[in-house]
Amino acid sequence: MEKNLLVGQSGGPTCVINSSLYGIIKEAKKHLEINKIYGSLNGIEGTINDQIIDLTSLDEMNLELLKQTPGAILGSARYCLKDNLNDNDYKKIKETFVKHNIHYFLYIGGNDSMDTVNKINMYFQKNNFDCQVIGIPKTIDNDLLYSDHTPGYASAIRFIANSINDIKQDIKCYKKGKVTIVEIMGRNTGWLAAGSKLASLNDNAPDLIYLPEGNFSIAKFVEDVKNVYQKNQNALVCVNEEIKDENGQYLLQENNNSIESDSFGHKQFGGVANNLATIIKNKLHIPVRAIELNLLQRCFSSSISLVDIKEAINCGKFAVRQLLKNQTGKVVILKRNPNQYRISYKLISVDKIANKIKYFPKEWIINDNDISNKFIEYALPLITKSYHCKCENGLVKFAKLKK
Amino acid sequence: MEKNLLVGQSGGPTCVINSSLYGIIKEAKKHLEINKIYGSLNGIEGTINDQIIDLTSLDEMNLELLKQTPGAILGSARYCLKDNLNDNDYKKIKETFVKHNIHYFLYIGGNDSMDTVNKINMYFQKNNFDCQVIGIPKTIDNDLLYSDHTPGYASAIRFIANSINDIKQDIKCYKKGKVTIVEIMGRNTGWLAAGSKLASLNDNAPDLIYLPEGNFSIAKFVEDVKNVYQKNQNALVCVNEEIKDENGQYLLQENNNSIESDSFGHKQFGGVANNLATIIKNKLHIPVRAIELNLLQRCFSSSISLVDIKEAINCGKFAVRQLLKNQTGKVVILKRNPNQYRISYKLISVDKIANKIKYFPKEWIINDNDISNKFIEYALPLITKSYHCKCENGLVKFAKLKK
Repeated sequence: MEKNLLVGQSGGPTCVINSSLYGIIKEAKKHLEINKIYGSLNGIEGTINDQIIDLTSLDEMNLELLKQTPGAILGSARYCLKDNLNDNDYKKIKETFVKHNIHYFLYIGGNDSMDTVNKINMYFQKNNFDCQVIGIPKTIDNDLLYSDHTPGYASAIRFIANSINDIKQDIKCYKKGKVTIVEIMGRNTGWLAAGSKLASLNDNAPDLIYLPEGNFSIAKFVEDVKNVYQKNQNALVCVNEEIKDENGQYLLQENNNSIESDSFGHKQFGGVANNLATIIKNKLHIPVRAIELNLLQRCFSSSISLVDIKEAINCGKFAVRQLLKNQTGKVVILKRNPNQYRISYKLISVDKIANKIKYFPKEWIINDNDISNKFIEYALPLITKSYHCKCENGLVKFAKLKK
Repeated sequence: MEKNLLVGQSGGPTCVINSSLYGIIKEAKKHLEINKIYGSLNGIEGTINDQIIDLTSLDEMNLELLKQTPGAILGSARYCLKDNLNDNDYKKIKETFVKHNIHYFLYIGGNDSMDTVNKINMYFQKNNFDCQVIGIPKTIDNDLLYSDHTPGYASAIRFIANSINDIKQDIKCYKKGKVTIVEIMGRNTGWLAAGSKLASLNDNAPDLIYLPEGNFSIAKFVEDVKNVYQKNQNALVCVNEEIKDENGQYLLQENNNSIESDSFGHKQFGGVANNLATIIKNKLHIPVRAIELNLLQRCFSSSISLVDIKEAINCGKFAVRQLLKNQTGKVVILKRNPNQYRISYKLISVDKIANKIKYFPKEWIINDNDISNKFIEYALPLITKSYHCKCENGLVKFAKLKK
């Protein structure tokens, strides 16, 4: 019997989400048990609507370019399956699987997407449908439980650390400078904002760093900034986009265009830096500027971390091998060798991870406005080298799929 | 008699402002006529206050690292000399020159800084002080008259083009996406915003581009965005930070923190994208997001243009040779060979350039919302290759000076 594999991508993409796809295709082609490799367009939506494409014969050039292509090449989705397994979506998913002889399913995504993996697996088990289902982690947020880190995080903090390194170098030019407040992504957690601390390795550390896991009070923030500015005549402040004040209120501007909810009920944030800048301006009357690193944190391709690409590929390859060992309802996690930096890959039950959050360790936060060297030890191996991208006309070249 | 050279840096820095310094030091060391090489800290302020440092014995490693160090390594200034040549500042400048036997003066800066070059030269001529004064161009804005382009511009549009390339790739992931409005720097002119068009070379062009040299009306803007969004279910819009509406009003948000004036009376802009996003949201009721590329446009070091570094170095070297030919009151300009891309360096009277603006050619603007291929032909040679930066700990390594 012909047995085919289907892969989908979901959630906010990263710089290496397509490297995992590369790993899957490379590995799947090695195994005779797998006949065709299909891609589901726009995550699970493509499966529901029978919009799938054949990736088996993707040419070598475009396959290689997947490693340097940001954004989910198959298209992404933020689609939440119902808890009720009798929902019509599940029936339609199964129809697509049956129609195309799909018996292996891989889903590349973050903790929301692992909810989808979990539900589809439960549905198949309940209905005795023969299909292995495995999740592959992907999120710049680095908030997946049990995994040392997540593919996508390394490239994001490599971009953040170098951006802060550059911004601080620029700021230092002026005798009398500004307070510069840089807003860094990170849903619920400060993993990405902490990445700014890595610029200290080139003597360009931010002066202040605020994470949602620390205690934040506006009064202390103003005092902190005042002290730094009095000493240096400038200040570089990094803040996570979701920090809350002492009353538990998000520090967002009213009428901010960015406050919307996605289908998982997560708000889209942005505007904290600008709001804090207004506070500094009003209270301290010193020049201030707000910068959001924004979307580039998850898609800047010119300096992708080499380790990140390798690990994302390995996750894909490992997942394929595990499918063939009859594993299902699992997600790949990364385990770090405690001595020299080396990663091994394991499986864990997806229900242990889905919809859960790994927070930044409180013991790595200093004085609620700085990050300890423990974090630098943890994060440095992730960013040391950059992938050497193929460019054409000065632009990083991207893979193209026929859809 | 000992004759020394002094160099200063001024205005908003670029990624290659220190490459020109590298060129100056390298060339000056070759000539016996030049004894010591001094740097003026924080532009002309360092000369006024006798804060200068000796660069003659800068070690080879830090000299080489200048090529990949953004921000003005000598410190920058936005200091405007008085029109009245009897002002005390001029006397103090001359005192510093006399004290340190300075008879050659180079100033790296934009069109404001060329005003400083012009005034100092006039003062020295008026007072029969033997000193050659030459300006070296530097500005990401590319707004210097007579020069084919300016050092700093190439790296800035290389970053902008690749950022747009990445953002568009990310945006394309979603079936039903957002309107993304990207705000790009550029004082008075659209040279930088036009750089976004280069992403078309990787099929990732912005859908709409608005420059201050085009006619902008909010009604047409809303209509443009509506049409693109109806067709693609997303839209990528690039706008210059200084576009004005049909009544000649800047499209800034009220209470925006970024609206301040520098000592030349130039306003610091920012906030246009957010304001336009509010308009789209209110009029079209579709999801929208504002992104400012911000400071990284002038300091992102991981992908500096190789051509930019070479030309910035050559400007510095050429200027030193011209000083020794008794040239003064001049500024270096870049002339392009009309056939194959090749740059030659010329001098032009500084008063022809100081405080003047080279606008983006109107004939390269299409339908007030797009850029013609003529611009791509012009700009492509500037961005084709990137300098291979030395990194340490995953960060671009910067030169350090003892101050």
